[in-house]
Amino acid sequence: MSKLLEDVVGELSKLPGIGRRTALRLAIHMLRMERSDVSSMTSAIDAFRNNIRYCSRCNNLSDSELCPICSDAGRDRSVVCVVEQVGDVMSIENTRQYKGLYHVLGGVISPMQGIGPSDLKIDLLLENIARGEIKEVILAIGTTVEGETTQFYITRRLEECKDVKVSTIARGIGFGDEIEYADELTIAHAIHNRTYVK
Amino acid sequence: MSKLLEDVVGELSKLPGIGRRTALRLAIHMLRMERSDVSSMTSAIDAFRNNIRYCSRCNNLSDSELCPICSDAGRDRSVVCVVEQVGDVMSIENTRQYKGLYHVLGGVISPMQGIGPSDLKIDLLLENIARGEIKEVILAIGTTVEGETTQFYITRRLEECKDVKVSTIARGIGFGDEIEYADELTIAHAIHNRTYVK
Repeated sequence: MSKLLEDVVGELSKLPGIGRRTALRLAIHMLRMERSDVSSMTSAIDAFRNNIRYCSRCNNLSDSELCPICSDAGRDRSVVCVVEQVGDVMSIENTRQYKGLYHVLGGVISPMQGIGPSDLKIDLLLENIARGEIKEVILAIGTTVEGETTQFYITRRLEECKDVKVSTIARGIGFGDEIEYADELTIAHAIHNRTYVK
Repeated sequence: MSKLLEDVVGELSKLPGIGRRTALRLAIHMLRMERSDVSSMTSAIDAFRNNIRYCSRCNNLSDSELCPICSDAGRDRSVVCVVEQVGDVMSIENTRQYKGLYHVLGGVISPMQGIGPSDLKIDLLLENIARGEIKEVILAIGTTVEGETTQFYITRRLEECKDVKVSTIARGIGFGDEIEYADELTIAHAIHNRTYVK
């Protein structure tokens, strides 16, 4: 096999979810792309990997010291939404409903993977709160065992912040989901926290 | 959102089978990779796109004028296996059973997509045969309507080559496949072309 092809297939198949067959398909596709388009792609990857930073305030990915959200004067600085990772910020931003700030933990507490509270940006969250602007913390963390543990831990740490409300996002049946396929815990919770319409 | 992140997600999601969500996951993964590993990957992509060539004899991807298979003195030059595309060569090579040469058509005849016989490397195949070394042509082309059309067309063109045998690969139930789920044409063909074991 061509060494150039072997190299590109080998490199691409190191990425998660991309096997040798998919890597080959991607390589063949690149041959049909303009050279300039392929080089735009590789330049974007290199620029991203070499120049991306973490926002010093919220730990979100950023091009500079502060991320675009933290430096946006139009955002509500009294609310902070705590999420596990960068992708969660994008999911919430896509709703165009939330106007507060974020705080990216960078993971969840997971003794199995050797991730303790000190590996997450929890102290940074408390430092931000200590500056006095934040009045509410919304915990938008996954409902896995690790997520629940993390939420419990953060809630306890936030007990010392007297004038700060703490909430968690609503759990229930998602729009478009069938009740039939929802787990019992979710159904029980959804019935208990029902909304009166009349 | 960070412009560096937006750029890399935008570029990666142009690739087939990669949506914005997968692109984001890949980008985040790259942050966990060493910078040198990311740059090895982008260099391999650029080198591939800018330097890859097509073998002047078999039309396979190649680093030089002739591909490694065509320039391998150990291969049987009397047999040529005709395939649609580069990936097929790799699939057949992986079996380690076939020792002849290949001929990559570069597609199949598809009037719907505007691909006619002259868009495929069929003349090159006949030129190679005209040199006299080739004694058998194995057609290993997919059983789609386009594949069958292509096979029919090539078979007709090969009629003029008197001393050359032409075969097609066996059709039947694949190893590991359930007869229950095979289509009727395949089952009928498999029964008709049965192998006697006693």
